[in-house]
Amino acid sequence: METLLLNKDDVSENVQMADLIPAVEDAFAAYQTGDAQMPSKSYIDLPEYNGDFRSMPAYLDAGDWDAAGIKWVNVHPDNPTHYDLPTVMGTMVYSDPENAYPLAIMDGTELTMQRTGAAAAVATDYLAIEDATSFGVVGAGVQSYTQLEAISTVRDIEEVVVSDVNEDAVRAFVEHFEDRFDVREGSISDAGHCDVLSTVTPVEDPIVSREDVADHTHVNAMGADAEGKHELADDLLLDAKLVIDDHAQTTHSGEINVPYNAGVLGDDDIYGEVGELVTGLKDGRTPDDGVTVFDSTGLAIQDVAAAHVAYEHADEHDNGYAFDLLGV
Amino acid sequence: METLLLNKDDVSENVQMADLIPAVEDAFAAYQTGDAQMPSKSYIDLPEYNGDFRSMPAYLDAGDWDAAGIKWVNVHPDNPTHYDLPTVMGTMVYSDPENAYPLAIMDGTELTMQRTGAAAAVATDYLAIEDATSFGVVGAGVQSYTQLEAISTVRDIEEVVVSDVNEDAVRAFVEHFEDRFDVREGSISDAGHCDVLSTVTPVEDPIVSREDVADHTHVNAMGADAEGKHELADDLLLDAKLVIDDHAQTTHSGEINVPYNAGVLGDDDIYGEVGELVTGLKDGRTPDDGVTVFDSTGLAIQDVAAAHVAYEHADEHDNGYAFDLLGV
Repeated sequence: METLLLNKDDVSENVQMADLIPAVEDAFAAYQTGDAQMPSKSYIDLPEYNGDFRSMPAYLDAGDWDAAGIKWVNVHPDNPTHYDLPTVMGTMVYSDPENAYPLAIMDGTELTMQRTGAAAAVATDYLAIEDATSFGVVGAGVQSYTQLEAISTVRDIEEVVVSDVNEDAVRAFVEHFEDRFDVREGSISDAGHCDVLSTVTPVEDPIVSREDVADHTHVNAMGADAEGKHELADDLLLDAKLVIDDHAQTTHSGEINVPYNAGVLGDDDIYGEVGELVTGLKDGRTPDDGVTVFDSTGLAIQDVAAAHVAYEHADEHDNGYAFDLLGV
Repeated sequence: METLLLNKDDVSENVQMADLIPAVEDAFAAYQTGDAQMPSKSYIDLPEYNGDFRSMPAYLDAGDWDAAGIKWVNVHPDNPTHYDLPTVMGTMVYSDPENAYPLAIMDGTELTMQRTGAAAAVATDYLAIEDATSFGVVGAGVQSYTQLEAISTVRDIEEVVVSDVNEDAVRAFVEHFEDRFDVREGSISDAGHCDVLSTVTPVEDPIVSREDVADHTHVNAMGADAEGKHELADDLLLDAKLVIDDHAQTTHSGEINVPYNAGVLGDDDIYGEVGELVTGLKDGRTPDDGVTVFDSTGLAIQDVAAAHVAYEHADEHDNGYAFDLLGV
């Protein structure tokens, strides 16, 4: 038997957003209904290298399909300057739950970007106004691209505003999308006054306040992935209908970790989990809602769902490189 | 950059026992001195498939070298009959701790066999009589081969006795080794009266009693890897100088888990951990010692040490298949 190897380009080619968004929605639903297993992330801390490794195993049963796998991922902030490597890299092993054969091994970095975009799209679909046509993004790094790709799949986005202090990053983003969208550079407030805003920065001091967003804006807070990170000001979080992906992860390292642990924001300020929206336990946007916020930390079940989509598409289209790793 | 893919044959070829045994000894030492990190195994239980997945991440700093990685491994007992696949399969991702680049991805099944043999050899080197020349093995399955390969690296083994109810397995073992050793089939007691005995069976009712071994035999109890498994009778365990690899793992799923949790055997009956032997904190065999037992559960640091050995050798000899997985 052979294991399919999917490199960065293969993952990008075989993960179709139109397939991935419903798969991630299925994953959120399975987690909500108890049909998923997601052990706590294990950390290996390497202060001598200013880095860490995280292992993210998961299984989910979506009814029509099930999937298992593990993502082994790191955060080494010195990588870009010292090694010309990304801060975050991931490797995903995707296994058949029935007999555990490793069906595929794939670039987990590209996979993470895709599934993170898809998570924002799922939340946007439940929380943004139906006729949203404008999208703002704060932070023009690698994660910003899949935000627009994914969100434009669930809403008819025409106008895009990108905001970043890095002019090169802004220019690259504009050039990448200018054929498909009316895309321009703007301030944080310009981006925030779009119908949908995604923030994808690593800041620890909030850069988006309540006045920076419109009264109906849906905000996807994607950037915070560690203790101390915090993109949205407390007044914005407290004024919004606030949806999270996972209580344990977000209070530890998600967007709300700082105000939550400072006692500024409590469980009563959290409207619900995205799994409750997709299973219909709680409503998405209602006519009474103003600003909405989705606090996304990124769950291992999203990776497994994305790996499933990548593998199925690649297998069907004879993509990737088949390699007999185990000799069985 | 490229990631080196090492399949089953590559792992077998590039893991030289003469390199692996000292690397595993280094790993035990690093664990003892606090220079290793080994988060608890995470389990994903899939009763619907009568199987489970385990993730085993680890890092160790041996002074001259350090290494990080994760093994993703399963136990699916129905695999041989239902899928013509092994019960246990593993995939290892081996990463550079400094920048987290995945240096290699390799067959974790072959790696497990090799590192398990090496662990037995380390313990045997400290606990068997110096002039041991005979080796017995109970259980002639896949793990038995690396036991002999490894132990014959640390002692001048001439005579080998193999015991198994499966005649085909015995014959295959004899044929494999008859050119290099005086190898014959025998009873459990015949095997147990050798200078060194390894047990590599999955039994839950002990099959080796105190009378089955000689007064000076060193026993490597390798088979138990789950709650309820138990190869050696309590009288043998209680009469022996008993060395374990890790207290938490062995009391949960190692050779002593049954008598320990029944209260028949307690912490006072455990002489020490193998890490205490290799760092010199405690003596190995002394002239006063009779039967000795090493209870091996298998640690993630052994896998990482073995992956390090495999990668270094393969890289130096241009073995394996280099693949640009991440595109960085």
